[in-house]
Formats: sequence, C-alpha cells, structure tokens
Amino acid sequence: MVVAPDSFKGSLDAAAVCAAVEEGVRRARPDAEVLRVPMADGGEGTLDCFLGALGGTEVWLECADPLGRPVRARYGLSGDGRSAVVELAAASGLPLVAEDERDPLRADTSGTGALIADAVRRGAREVLVCLGGSATSDGGTGLLRALGVRFLDAGGRELPPGGGPLARLADIDDSGVPEAVRATRLRVACDVTNPMVGPDGAAAVFGPQKGATPEQVRELDAALGRLADVIAARFGVRVHDLPGAGAAGGACGGLVGVLGAGTAPGGDLVADLVGLDAAVAGADLVITGEGRLDAQSAAGKVVSVVAGRAARAGAPVVALAGAVAGPLAELHARGLTAAFSIADGPRTLAEMTADAGRLLADAAEQAVRLRLG
Amino acid sequence: MVVAPDSFKGSLDAAAVCAAVEEGVRRARPDAEVLRVPMADGGEGTLDCFLGALGGTEVWLECADPLGRPVRARYGLSGDGRSAVVELAAASGLPLVAEDERDPLRADTSGTGALIADAVRRGAREVLVCLGGSATSDGGTGLLRALGVRFLDAGGRELPPGGGPLARLADIDDSGVPEAVRATRLRVACDVTNPMVGPDGAAAVFGPQKGATPEQVRELDAALGRLADVIAARFGVRVHDLPGAGAAGGACGGLVGVLGAGTAPGGDLVADLVGLDAAVAGADLVITGEGRLDAQSAAGKVVSVVAGRAARAGAPVVALAGAVAGPLAELHARGLTAAFSIADGPRTLAEMTADAGRLLADAAEQAVRLRLG
Repeated sequence: MVVAPDSFKGSLDAAAVCAAVEEGVRRARPDAEVLRVPMADGGEGTLDCFLGALGGTEVWLECADPLGRPVRARYGLSGDGRSAVVELAAASGLPLVAEDERDPLRADTSGTGALIADAVRRGAREVLVCLGGSATSDGGTGLLRALGVRFLDAGGRELPPGGGPLARLADIDDSGVPEAVRATRLRVACDVTNPMVGPDGAAAVFGPQKGATPEQVRELDAALGRLADVIAARFGVRVHDLPGAGAAGGACGGLVGVLGAGTAPGGDLVADLVGLDAAVAGADLVITGEGRLDAQSAAGKVVSVVAGRAARAGAPVVALAGAVAGPLAELHARGLTAAFSIADGPRTLAEMTADAGRLLADAAEQAVRLRLG
Repeated sequence: MVVAPDSFKGSLDAAAVCAAVEEGVRRARPDAEVLRVPMADGGEGTLDCFLGALGGTEVWLECADPLGRPVRARYGLSGDGRSAVVELAAASGLPLVAEDERDPLRADTSGTGALIADAVRRGAREVLVCLGGSATSDGGTGLLRALGVRFLDAGGRELPPGGGPLARLADIDDSGVPEAVRATRLRVACDVTNPMVGPDGAAAVFGPQKGATPEQVRELDAALGRLADVIAARFGVRVHDLPGAGAAGGACGGLVGVLGAGTAPGGDLVADLVGLDAAVAGADLVITGEGRLDAQSAAGKVVSVVAGRAARAGAPVVALAGAVAGPLAELHARGLTAAFSIADGPRTLAEMTADAGRLLADAAEQAVRLRLG
C-alpha cells in the first residue's frame, strides 16, 4: 500500500497526513506494508517534501530580499548533492515586504538567483524552482543576473534592478553564464497558465496584489513586453504568449527564454523527484488526498498526478479530502478510482480542521476495508 | 447489487434512499442489476416498507384512540392477505392526544387491538406489531380485550380501561379468544430492553413522557406489577423482568404473557418479511444506510441486520449514512465491510438534509467504484 497525499492546507502537512492515514490502514490491515510518500505540488510544503523524500539538507544563505536588503533564506539540497529545490518565495516572497514598502517597479528576484547559484556551486545539476507568492514583476531578471546574465540599455550599460527599468532594455548578454549553470537542468514548477504580457499577463493579473497601481501595471506590462521582445530577438524563443510564462512576475518566462528552463506542473516535478512511479508499481491500493478536491485538482495537482501514475501502474487509487467538490469525471478519467470526504457528518470547517488526523485515519480504515476487505 | 437501506429520518424515506443510491450506482456501472429492498426497523416507515415489498394494501378502519374517541387508523395487509403489519402508534399513539388531554392512568390500546382483530378477520395469520410512540401504559390490556381477553377484579367484574385500574386485577379470562386469533402468529418488533416493572420499567422510564406525574408513575408501576403477577399465576410466564416487556407501556409484556407473542428486533422481523436473505445471496455488493450510524446501530437496527445477513451470504456490505459516529468495531464484527458519511465536506445538518439525495448518489457512485472499479 502506498500513501501519497498532498498536505491538508491549514491543518496537516503531508507527512502528518501520511501518519494519520497509515494509522487507519493498520487498523484494517495490521500487517500491511505501507510506503509513505508525502507529496506536494510545487507550492507550500514542496521543500519539506523533497527533503523528507531524498534525505536532503536545508541550506541557509544570506541573500537579498525583493528590495535588496539582507535576508536569510533556505533551499533544499538532496542527500547526494545532485539536486536542489529552490522556492522563489523564500528570498523573493511577498511576505518579506511590508505593505507600505511595496515597490513593484523595483522589486527583484536576485535573492532567489543567489540560492540557485549556491546550489550549483555545491554541485547540484538539477534544480527545481518553485514559483508562487513572489513580490516581484521583474521577468526573472534579478535571478538571471545572479547567474551571470547582463541586461543592457541602448548605451550598453547594465539596467538597475526591477521590472520597471526593463522598458529601456536593448540587449541581453549571457556570455558570463558559467559552464556549471549551463550544465544544470533547470525546471520550473508552474501551476498558472498566464502568459508573459497582455490582459491575462503577469502585470495585469498579479501586479495589483504586489502593490502596483493601474499606471504601474501598464508600465510593467510594457516593460515585460520589451523583455519578451529582446528574448525573442536574442534567443529565438517567443515567451509573450507562452502559457505559464507570466508566473511569478514573469520569472518563468525569463528562465525559459534565457536559460532554456523546462516547465511542468508542480505535482509532476515532485513526483519525479520522489520517485513516485517506482513507489506505486505493484501497489494493491494507493491512497492520496488533499484539503480540498475539486475541478482544479485535475490540472497538475497532487491528486491528479498520483491518480495518473497509479493508473498507469495498474494500481487502484482512492483520494481522501477535507472537502470533495465534484464533478469528479475528469479525475476519474485521469485514473482516480474513487474519492471520499473525511467528514463524518455535519461538521464545521473548524471542527474538521481540529480533528483532521482522526477523521483521516477513520476514512482510510474504511476505504481499505471496502477495497480489500 | 442490492440496495437495502433504512430511511434517513427527517430527510428521505427508504424508497427515496434506494432511488438515490441506484442513480449513483448506475453512474459507476450503467449495466448493473440493482435490486431495491427498502428496509425499516419496526419504527417509522415500517408499514410503507412492508406494503412496498409485499405489494400489499393499506386498510383504514375507524377505531378507538387512546382515550376511547373515534379515530381513523390504518394497517398493512400483504398482497396474499396472509400477513399484516400493525403499528401501535396508528391508533394508540401519543400524537393523538393533546398535551392537556393526557390521561396516563386511563389511556389504552383497544384501537390497536381492533386493527389486529380486523386483520385476523380478513385472514391474516401472521401479524407483525410494531411498538413505539404509544400514549398508553395499559400493559396491552386494551389490545388484548379487543381480541377477546377479559381482565377481572376480585368480584369477577371487568376492569375499566387503562393501566391505573390494573391495581385491582385479580384474574385474566382468555376463554373468549377466538380460534383464529390463537392460530395467528403474533410477532412484536421491540427495540428497547426495558422490563415490565421497576426503576427501568415501562412506567418509570416512559410514563413521564406520556404525562404521568411522579405519583402516577408509582401507581402505574404497581399496577403493571400486578398485571405481571396475574399473568405469571395464570399463564406461567414471568414478564416482570423480561427484557423488552416494558415496551409501549407494557404492551409487549401483555402480548407475550397472555397470547404467547414472539419478540425480535424490528430490523430482523422486517428482513424476514421482505425476504432479505434471498435478495443478498450472490450479490457482488450490498449497500445499506441510515440517517445516523452509531453504536446503537449495532443492536437490531437496519444496518446491523443487513450487514449480518449479507455477511452470512458472503456479500460485502457498505453503509452510507448522514453521520457516522464511531467506533464501528461492533458493526464490523457483525459483518459490515465499511461505512462512509455522505457529507462532502464541512456542512450544516440543514444543508445535508436538503441535499441528501445528491450526496447519497455521489457517495454510492464512489463506493461502487472503490469496491468494484
């Protein structure tokens, strides 16, 4: 039996979900072989999931926050040192900037770049970059600068940090990118489909929550358009309309366009990192879950990924969730055998949150009994 | 597949539960053979369940209410006319007496006796009497009188109706009971274990809700003790401490003691009536359920009965309930494979009640998928 759940946000992390589910499984099958594979989808909890699965270490580094001030941030390095997980929010996240300090034109991702550079320096050649929660709209230029890329104006001078100055971008010089960085497989966990520019782009959709005024949104959208133009001219890659390129203030588009990073749904990237395919092969039952299961779950989130991979391995898979908001047809089509809420009757959200461990154990026990009893 | 649920009280009757479950089953298995067996436990809904299962007719009769006033009440007669179901509450129920009219010393069950007599007159030789909800504490003497029994004082005079006058009971004369009544198999559906007399007896436990003052409770307890004494002397049956004899104001004790009625948990009696054993034989899955599944469900209620009979037939059985209040160990031991609440997340009772049909269909679909998918 394999237990491969996401966290129940606001209630239990993925490891705690695994523990509760295993308790229930053992009530039904005391001698079951239970393999715990805590999962994540590239968002909250991904770093811990990676560290747990690969026996890795947390590396803490002093780097620059979105406004260039010193901040201590962490990333994860696998036990063998060959792979790393960097969460963009660690050094470049919105919570690092007080509301009255927000500066959407200037905020940049250089701190995240420093974390990636450190991982590469220590030998990592596979780096998963988790987007989401950024304070920045710099098209990833701060991050790329930290990896040796130069962003130049028409006079050949380096631009100051932030998304605003990109309006004056004339050329990108990647000749200073070290060989080790070029040899590193960069993958971006990206769960939004927003393009780099336009009405659904990074500035228009995510700018306001980062403090941008309507005028600044227009300014940033034009600046990111300029970045996309130069990327297209210089690297032959068109990121203007690329789905997902607008994630994290365009950082996804910058990484893809300048360094050739790959993108994929976070759940799939995590599944690869933790070796989910091997884990589910031959399982008599796979139990997954998340706080809330809904139509969104079908797109690259943990339940969908686990269902798909279990189904390909021929294993039945049941999802347990705080709430199940159907229809589930798409998830069934992707391989999900069945889904149940862990609610045991009329309950408030607060009651369910407080009692999540017991409810999960009870539901897991019943699911195992029904499938295998 | 067999669908054999109780009603969800306050929400759906058993037939509606069957329909909702079948809808969900068909989503998972469009070609499934689904056998609907609406169940009941001897309480609310038993008559309708019996009529549905045996293609019976409802017989309406004018008879006496607990205070001797005319009332129209119904009972059920099977299609072949050989069996009948009489609910004591129909003619002798508490709702028939307004609160300011309550007269616990005088109220009697003669109306229920008239219904039974009518069923026997029409040819029924198997009568199921469902207790519960009575306004009476007459030890069933009204009912027995309608079937030809006489309750006499020391002077050989018939006592007036009600439990109170039984304090003067000296003898019981059953010589007037017709042969047809004697040839009828009377079975009493009884889900309480209260004895006839004493601190857990009919008067002490159920008297107050029928309007008895503490003084009247003492009076009734002594009178029912007198009835039990005379039954013991006259028929050699001791009902004083018989578990369940105190049901419906001692009507159970009177029927057992004077007419040799058999008692059983309502769920078992209904299961026999509707032929549940034959229905579940060879089923790939049995789906049962009730509004609230808890420790009480283990004792003779529908889920417990269905689980036990399905297990004996080798069929897996899953229960769907509005609320599942564990522990379920006893129900599992009786044969229940698994149980799930139909709640799909945090919900109020009102939301669940209003949406019970959809929630049931969804849960049934998922249960079938998990078991057979």
